[in-house]
Amino acid sequence: MSNKPLILITNDDGITAPGIRMLISVMNELGDVVVVAPDKGQSGMGHAITINSTIHIDKLTVENEPQIEYSCTGTPADCVKLAVSELLDRKPDLCVSGINHGSNSAINVIYSGTMSAAIEAGMEGIPSIGFSLLDFSLSANFEPARKYIKKIANNVLENGLPSGVILNVNIPKLEADKIQGVKVCRQANATWHEEFDKRIDPRGRTYFWLTGKFVNLDEGEDTDEWALENGYISVVPVQYDLTAYHAIQDLNTRNLNEL
Amino acid sequence: MSNKPLILITNDDGITAPGIRMLISVMNELGDVVVVAPDKGQSGMGHAITINSTIHIDKLTVENEPQIEYSCTGTPADCVKLAVSELLDRKPDLCVSGINHGSNSAINVIYSGTMSAAIEAGMEGIPSIGFSLLDFSLSANFEPARKYIKKIANNVLENGLPSGVILNVNIPKLEADKIQGVKVCRQANATWHEEFDKRIDPRGRTYFWLTGKFVNLDEGEDTDEWALENGYISVVPVQYDLTAYHAIQDLNTRNLNEL
Repeated sequence: MSNKPLILITNDDGITAPGIRMLISVMNELGDVVVVAPDKGQSGMGHAITINSTIHIDKLTVENEPQIEYSCTGTPADCVKLAVSELLDRKPDLCVSGINHGSNSAINVIYSGTMSAAIEAGMEGIPSIGFSLLDFSLSANFEPARKYIKKIANNVLENGLPSGVILNVNIPKLEADKIQGVKVCRQANATWHEEFDKRIDPRGRTYFWLTGKFVNLDEGEDTDEWALENGYISVVPVQYDLTAYHAIQDLNTRNLNEL
Repeated sequence: MSNKPLILITNDDGITAPGIRMLISVMNELGDVVVVAPDKGQSGMGHAITINSTIHIDKLTVENEPQIEYSCTGTPADCVKLAVSELLDRKPDLCVSGINHGSNSAINVIYSGTMSAAIEAGMEGIPSIGFSLLDFSLSANFEPARKYIKKIANNVLENGLPSGVILNVNIPKLEADKIQGVKVCRQANATWHEEFDKRIDPRGRTYFWLTGKFVNLDEGEDTDEWALENGYISVVPVQYDLTAYHAIQDLNTRNLNEL
């Protein structure tokens, strides 16, 4: 049995996506890698889990590469649950998710299968990081991010993360010498202005495609959006305790018991 | 045009579920109701949205009932997006989601389609509440909750909610005279211990059903789990700014820029 760290890798773009291939290549330098990732793209799946249907896995091998791989019919969160409770001999020392093809900054974190997988691992007590590159293209260049990903993953392997905290790392689409460094940030207050593309199908029925424009409402210089626009890699610590503690006192004054 | 409040209703159990029928019946007493809800059960969908396929809607009418209804092929979050940007003439004064058949307390909030729909509405600036009853049964008795649901919804219609805050309301499975009242709480620190049910299909392939045990790790008496176990309706204010502010300082000491 190896003394190297055990690293679980997943994503939401599917096990064949270039982003996860890059992440596997970096993590093979840091530890023993097990990949459990969706067999197809699962973008926008949020924290969905498979309750009402079955989950299948297939063990894969890639010639001349050391990692163990499983392709899974479930969601990104399913992949993590299945890895931890069925496929791995012990709890991994690190979980990394991605590299996502496209941003998961600001409010995108909430729709993101990549980040939900990382958060699921965090909920299992595994130090966990989601990585995303601001480039949707299948031919995106992940190489400039390599040394930063290695640095951040190594740091978390060495120091862990505070309990209940997961890192959301977004990488600007820049050449290596244009990246300004890493900035720890808060989640920008941003929103999507939906614009549904309304069409008529061949049988005369109306249908919709979801589209939208991302709008940053936040002028702060401590946000992930600011960092990315200014050439930095953004690191936002996120949590799954959703309680809005600041609102508890207000609600307690409302006498909701007086019927 | 009516002067009454405009109330948007959705859920994740599907438009025909008894829980949403009850919620419609209560909200018809408070305002003009528009229902946009999934055409089928979408439990465990989290904050999934439909990016890579089309969304269809059907307008429905229910005899002798005043509300307008749309059945939607999308996820709960899709329903809210479509309602706000395509189906409603103006921004609703309130969005209510549920009543969910089953608990969305503690960490369940993160997997919940019901709560994700409410959170989506909150992100659109609509005061918003998710309601859940701790009873998965299709024949669950929602009647004891009626007066509390009306009270909480009325309060939010009158006073709004703090910016970025959504209410997660869970109702114990009790007779009306056994309910102790309403408690404002924080989200309990709880977890699921997954237990995958591993089977062999008729072709010899392994497959899994996701099952698990809910484990409350939190001994606090200010949590939603405590409230529910002690006969109270729990009200947790939740937020979609996931930033773990308390972790920013720690991360800033890690010198992630020193490559």
